[in-house]
Amino acid sequence: MAGDDQRALQYEQTLMYGRYTQELGAYAKEEAARLREEGGWRRSVKDHSRSLELLEYDRGRCAKCRICTVRCQKFLISRVGEDWIFLILLGLFMALVSWVVDFAIAICLQAQKWMYGGLESNVFLQYLAWVTYPVVLITFSAGFTQILAPQAVGSGIPEMKTILRGVVLKEYLTFKTFVAKVIGLTCALGSGMPLGKEGPFVHIASLCAALLSKFMSLFGGIYENESRNIEMLAAACAVGVGCCFAAPIGGVLFSIEVTSTFFAVRNYWRGFFAATFSAFIFRVLAVWNRDEETITALFKTRFRLDFPFDLQELPAFAVIGIASGFGGALFVYLNRLIVQFIRKQKTINKFLMKKRLLYPALVTLLVSTLTFPPGFGQFMAGKLTQKESLVTLLDNRTWAKQGIAEGFDYIGNSQAWNHPQVNVFVTLVLFIVMKFWMSALATTIPVPCGAFMPVFVIGAAFGRLVGESMAAWFPDGIHSDGTIYPIVPGGYAVVGAAALSGAVTHTVSTAVIVFELTGQISHILPVMIAVILANAVAQSLQPSLYDSIIRIKKLPYLPELGWGHHEKYNICVEDIMIRDVMYITLNCCYRDLHDVLLTGHLKTLALLESSESMILLGSIERAQLQALLSLQLGRPRRLEYLRDRATAEKKRLSMVSHPGSEDGSQRVNQEVRFQISTEESSFSSTPTLSMKPLKPALKRPSVVDRPPDIPMPTSPQDHSGNTLKNLFCVNPETEGLEDDFDVDDDMTIREIAEWEENQLDEQVNFDNCKIDPAPFQLVERTSLHKTHTIFSLLGLDHAYVTSIGRLIGVVSLKELQKAIEGSVAVKGVKVRPPLASFRDSGTSGSSSSNSENEATELHKLWDRHKSMSLPREHLASDSDEKSQ
Amino acid sequence: MAGDDQRALQYEQTLMYGRYTQELGAYAKEEAARLREEGGWRRSVKDHSRSLELLEYDRGRCAKCRICTVRCQKFLISRVGEDWIFLILLGLFMALVSWVVDFAIAICLQAQKWMYGGLESNVFLQYLAWVTYPVVLITFSAGFTQILAPQAVGSGIPEMKTILRGVVLKEYLTFKTFVAKVIGLTCALGSGMPLGKEGPFVHIASLCAALLSKFMSLFGGIYENESRNIEMLAAACAVGVGCCFAAPIGGVLFSIEVTSTFFAVRNYWRGFFAATFSAFIFRVLAVWNRDEETITALFKTRFRLDFPFDLQELPAFAVIGIASGFGGALFVYLNRLIVQFIRKQKTINKFLMKKRLLYPALVTLLVSTLTFPPGFGQFMAGKLTQKESLVTLLDNRTWAKQGIAEGFDYIGNSQAWNHPQVNVFVTLVLFIVMKFWMSALATTIPVPCGAFMPVFVIGAAFGRLVGESMAAWFPDGIHSDGTIYPIVPGGYAVVGAAALSGAVTHTVSTAVIVFELTGQISHILPVMIAVILANAVAQSLQPSLYDSIIRIKKLPYLPELGWGHHEKYNICVEDIMIRDVMYITLNCCYRDLHDVLLTGHLKTLALLESSESMILLGSIERAQLQALLSLQLGRPRRLEYLRDRATAEKKRLSMVSHPGSEDGSQRVNQEVRFQISTEESSFSSTPTLSMKPLKPALKRPSVVDRPPDIPMPTSPQDHSGNTLKNLFCVNPETEGLEDDFDVDDDMTIREIAEWEENQLDEQVNFDNCKIDPAPFQLVERTSLHKTHTIFSLLGLDHAYVTSIGRLIGVVSLKELQKAIEGSVAVKGVKVRPPLASFRDSGTSGSSSSNSENEATELHKLWDRHKSMSLPREHLASDSDEKSQ
Repeated sequence: MAGDDQRALQYEQTLMYGRYTQELGAYAKEEAARLREEGGWRRSVKDHSRSLELLEYDRGRCAKCRICTVRCQKFLISRVGEDWIFLILLGLFMALVSWVVDFAIAICLQAQKWMYGGLESNVFLQYLAWVTYPVVLITFSAGFTQILAPQAVGSGIPEMKTILRGVVLKEYLTFKTFVAKVIGLTCALGSGMPLGKEGPFVHIASLCAALLSKFMSLFGGIYENESRNIEMLAAACAVGVGCCFAAPIGGVLFSIEVTSTFFAVRNYWRGFFAATFSAFIFRVLAVWNRDEETITALFKTRFRLDFPFDLQELPAFAVIGIASGFGGALFVYLNRLIVQFIRKQKTINKFLMKKRLLYPALVTLLVSTLTFPPGFGQFMAGKLTQKESLVTLLDNRTWAKQGIAEGFDYIGNSQAWNHPQVNVFVTLVLFIVMKFWMSALATTIPVPCGAFMPVFVIGAAFGRLVGESMAAWFPDGIHSDGTIYPIVPGGYAVVGAAALSGAVTHTVSTAVIVFELTGQISHILPVMIAVILANAVAQSLQPSLYDSIIRIKKLPYLPELGWGHHEKYNICVEDIMIRDVMYITLNCCYRDLHDVLLTGHLKTLALLESSESMILLGSIERAQLQALLSLQLGRPRRLEYLRDRATAEKKRLSMVSHPGSEDGSQRVNQEVRFQISTEESSFSSTPTLSMKPLKPALKRPSVVDRPPDIPMPTSPQDHSGNTLKNLFCVNPETEGLEDDFDVDDDMTIREIAEWEENQLDEQVNFDNCKIDPAPFQLVERTSLHKTHTIFSLLGLDHAYVTSIGRLIGVVSLKELQKAIEGSVAVKGVKVRPPLASFRDSGTSGSSSSNSENEATELHKLWDRHKSMSLPREHLASDSDEKSQ
Repeated sequence: MAGDDQRALQYEQTLMYGRYTQELGAYAKEEAARLREEGGWRRSVKDHSRSLELLEYDRGRCAKCRICTVRCQKFLISRVGEDWIFLILLGLFMALVSWVVDFAIAICLQAQKWMYGGLESNVFLQYLAWVTYPVVLITFSAGFTQILAPQAVGSGIPEMKTILRGVVLKEYLTFKTFVAKVIGLTCALGSGMPLGKEGPFVHIASLCAALLSKFMSLFGGIYENESRNIEMLAAACAVGVGCCFAAPIGGVLFSIEVTSTFFAVRNYWRGFFAATFSAFIFRVLAVWNRDEETITALFKTRFRLDFPFDLQELPAFAVIGIASGFGGALFVYLNRLIVQFIRKQKTINKFLMKKRLLYPALVTLLVSTLTFPPGFGQFMAGKLTQKESLVTLLDNRTWAKQGIAEGFDYIGNSQAWNHPQVNVFVTLVLFIVMKFWMSALATTIPVPCGAFMPVFVIGAAFGRLVGESMAAWFPDGIHSDGTIYPIVPGGYAVVGAAALSGAVTHTVSTAVIVFELTGQISHILPVMIAVILANAVAQSLQPSLYDSIIRIKKLPYLPELGWGHHEKYNICVEDIMIRDVMYITLNCCYRDLHDVLLTGHLKTLALLESSESMILLGSIERAQLQALLSLQLGRPRRLEYLRDRATAEKKRLSMVSHPGSEDGSQRVNQEVRFQISTEESSFSSTPTLSMKPLKPALKRPSVVDRPPDIPMPTSPQDHSGNTLKNLFCVNPETEGLEDDFDVDDDMTIREIAEWEENQLDEQVNFDNCKIDPAPFQLVERTSLHKTHTIFSLLGLDHAYVTSIGRLIGVVSLKELQKAIEGSVAVKGVKVRPPLASFRDSGTSGSSSSNSENEATELHKLWDRHKSMSLPREHLASDSDEKSQ
């Protein structure tokens, strides 16, 4: 109770009002402390170096040691803040994580194979083992993630895109999420389901960077910088892809394409540096573990170098690209459809929500049943893991020579594709079709998982299918003159993989990833052609998988401007802006504030000089205004008012009864004491809000008029009042004393309403209110294209449209979203935003009338100004109407 | 005299004053016309489609034909505006240009070889032929470029960087420049000098894009859009590199790194699309020309795939990287030194300036003398062209087995490296050293040329040197267990080429270019490591070659923020901004304008509401203000004043002498006529100035007070005056009539001074003045880092620093430049800008005091406002002091 009271005392002075100033004050204090400390540190370093110089005059080992230590310390501290240290640590750590995860996954998969192999005598037991193992793993993964950190579910790339766009999603970058993601991912991938590692690794790397930043900030101050952390997150995304595929260049490019809208070239090296280091360590670990002899590509191919492909094969590659484009769009659509279907089915949904782990288990059961090797799996190479499938698909031998599947005498996994009864083409087609929907389904399971790798494998299978067909069609190759160059179906697989994954993710850099994964770049032109065609097709049909997830998850986003739609250049901000801006003026009263808060929806409100000048001064957050208003109308203020009234009354009475002034002042002093204790008790009922500081409130000038001759409770010692109260607070005997002398809240509801009405008519006092003094401004004629650029460049949420200082409109992300989707989408038909037509019809004179308007308005402003400095009557009516 | 007067009269209506409004008006008209036309076009299309429907009811071939034609036309017109059409055309055209240039260069080089070979009997003649040929070509190239378009000289990448930063350098994108660049480049490269093709090709591609845009704008309107053209230029840069090296991915990345500071990911595909298409066509042309059997890399290597390098070789690669870093910095330094040396030597310079072609000829003579194969050239493989050198350097055979240069039994160019008396190491070292300074010297010749390729070759030679040394040191390779894998010196050459070119250009993407050039990616990790190390070293020593040229040419630029300097996060705008901002207020008088114009240096001035409120309304260009001032003080205005005075005088007189009002008005009418005819005659003699529109001037309210009851010469027909005058103008007999009735400029100098003093005291009228209504604003606490980002993102020239609408400072590119160079440069010692120290000492309270200040200031503003709406006495003194 006592503690509560004390806290409550603090509260009285501040309420919500103080919240931001508290933060500001606290920030100032922290900042000051930090700088003092830093200064101290510098001084101590200086002292050290001075003492160093002195020490050098000393003799003895001890002194030398100390010199050494101090120097090392100095050096280390100065280095710890450097970017490259951070990047190396990040790269190293991520490479280790990637390698460990890979290792664990390999063990999991081996265990499954071992179990499956050990039970070869009984098919039923074999089936049980084959099915139970992944179901258990996936269920565990889903449950573990659900319990520890539900944010770890899914790919993480959409979230990273949102975060890098400037939206703060703090819960996505915690240590819990890190643990959940790593363990969940390992289990999920260890189950052998068609899931990917790359999306989650982008997230894991970002988590790493965020945690490392936090850790490093113990040493130096730079790690607290916001924009630096964003830069590091961008680099981390590159590391994530880089150490996942051992593809530094592709990693950097892929992460840029997938997460950024605008990229600072000066951050380029960060990504390259960290990703290269990470990929290097990742591959070195493999060498040290004796998996590899030296550093080579992850899925090394051995295609012919001299004559990788013939010019006449290019149409086939183009076909792969176009088909992949459609396939990619279909995949995204299918994935979204599944999610939406499950969301819509309310009864199923309810049931599944109750038994959260049932859905993953069911999906896993279905998928693993179908891939059961002695069952249906035998027709779709079901016994191969994802990695094995990819390796076999990129094989540089031709499976179907002369149209029949002969020559499958190779040892190893390739045999899985060769079913005794069924053609290799059938196996491939079945594989593609089954894996396609399985992957789309499996990526909806709430475990940490990506879709890149499954899509990549499907693409490779599709490419292999086309390649094998080509090889069957032209057994001796296409090249007409001289040497026979047989067709290399593996090259087609490479092209297909790049094209399909590029189509699903809407990226071109999958081409580079493919080269780095296979270690061969000879197919560069076919790959580039296919990837670009696939992108062209897919982008015109569907959003990318990540954008699709962003929309499903309703994360804040800004749609991209499409390919070559010209409207974006012709639409101006004035066509899409909201003209009816919610604003407050400097001299507005609380009633206006109240009205404004009741209507609008934007998070911030414009602060104008006055409603007739419309000059934009800044913007204020809605929460701030709410705080102001609730302070003005809140109970504490009413109590204060009552107290004031009571004091005045008493004063009057005492003046009447005891004309002696000494006595009066004594009384008042006593009252001060009473009141303070009163305040305590009155606030004890709201202890949760009591952390607010006192200082800002003390600074606040009282709005209620006080007769200056009456000594007010705390006003004479306004600045010392803080300590005074604290003294009182610590003083235990005053507590709980004379609690009964409360100013009773005896106002009737009518009185309260009246009082509130009075309060609302007061002018707002904006002191101590956090104002953004330079909100972003646009001009009416800024084109949609430029607006989009600026919004995505600066990560804006809204921007004011001004004309010579006057506010004339506001554009928020929503309007922009609408405008873009209105102008771009819907089957290639250009749909202009309704307002755009306005301008067309009236443009003949719009520009000139615009300039006229401008001049007129300026003139008005000027007139107004004149009239203000030399006030006249005739303008008052106009201004009063608006501002009151 | 008469002409002066007349011009002066004509002036009266417009002067410079009208200039901007004229442009605005003209713009409006053009715009209106365009839109009307467009509307007309649309309507006609609509009509067509309607008529189409009608036509379908018709019968006969003619109707069908017409339907077909109309449909085709519609389709073509609608397609012509699409980006991909443009990109394909650009890619196609650039591929053709690249191929033709390559072909011409090859013929030139062949011709030289043929001449040289034909004269084998006589060494002196051989020398003459060897030397004269390049001298003639280079001299021609220099002369041709000089005469046609001096802008074509040099690489072009620095200029493109500046243009993409938003600075308009129109003369760099003309057809003349294109012709000069292509022909000049062909001749320069045909001479066999160590010059590159890639920089100029970036420029040529940009030229192509700009010209193509112009051409395409004949069909559609989108090509007139500024931001679209910039996007296309960025894509063109990628095409330039892409079709030069047949390296689409590397081209895109290199062009981004070299020309952009911020890159829009949505433009990514443009670059990839165009560059891929261009590279494809470029290589297809080679296939069609029977140079190649199929599409492969330009400098194909055939390194071992299984075991490209051993882990233990990595230190050697790192050494190459670090050494290349130093070498790259040295190259840039040397290049700059040569330019500055030649500039400084005034006597030499004067002489060279007179005989502009002497310098190229002398340099060429020197270089070709040294490479003369029977002379010194034999020790540095002088007879090889650049391309041949590169091919031999990337050879996958080892030249120096067991430490001696044996086994050089290969046929072909490799033999050039094998001198009978001299070790292959000596040849390589000589080659590197000689080519190094030769390239640095040759790139200063005023011909279109780049430095990438020479540097690339030098890097390859250096890598080969290290590789050969390694091979000599470890004849059986380093790998310890099992198979012997000999060292591949060609791999080292690849690494060296990428590292040195990366160091000189400060790019990482040379790695990708190298992979695409060689067609092998197996050395990815060594290349990446070497390139990153080289960049790290080079960037800390020197600017990139392109930035160096930007500085030499004094192009407007913004220096990059260096690697990991923390100060950029701690310095705020308030530390670097200029607090003493030149501003004008809405209610200022012309005297203030005059004073302001005399002092500052910025191109734009801030427009404030008033000097006490300091609220920023917008910015006005200096030229506009000068126009305003000269209008106010100009002779025409004085004459008007005199006329007015005379009229008033006359009126008074007439009122006195002839009290009859009829007579008076008649007189006035006559006078009107006289005056008008005066004006007319003035018009006829100054036809060049008569194009200014009258309207804005007519709209302008007269500042001189006129008694409203006196009928003014033209004021009653203010709006019809225009046509009236035109009518008179056409009327020839009035010309020259009663010229003597001019208002004589009979004011004495004292009178004029007095009049001017009076004029200066008038308030400025800003109507029709072009005001930028939303200049960019920053807050005091914006960090240097963020400011730099915003400046480079938006291509700003200056930004105002405001606090809640009040202007408190201005930051221009210059301050930013100073701040960055002050904080970053000078041998790693951090040099804070002098003002930054301020904050450190007083920061303990700065934040809180800041917020206090803000509050106080806001309060002041609020008070002021109150006092304005309810004017009181006590504030007037304060405000008057400032504004008057």
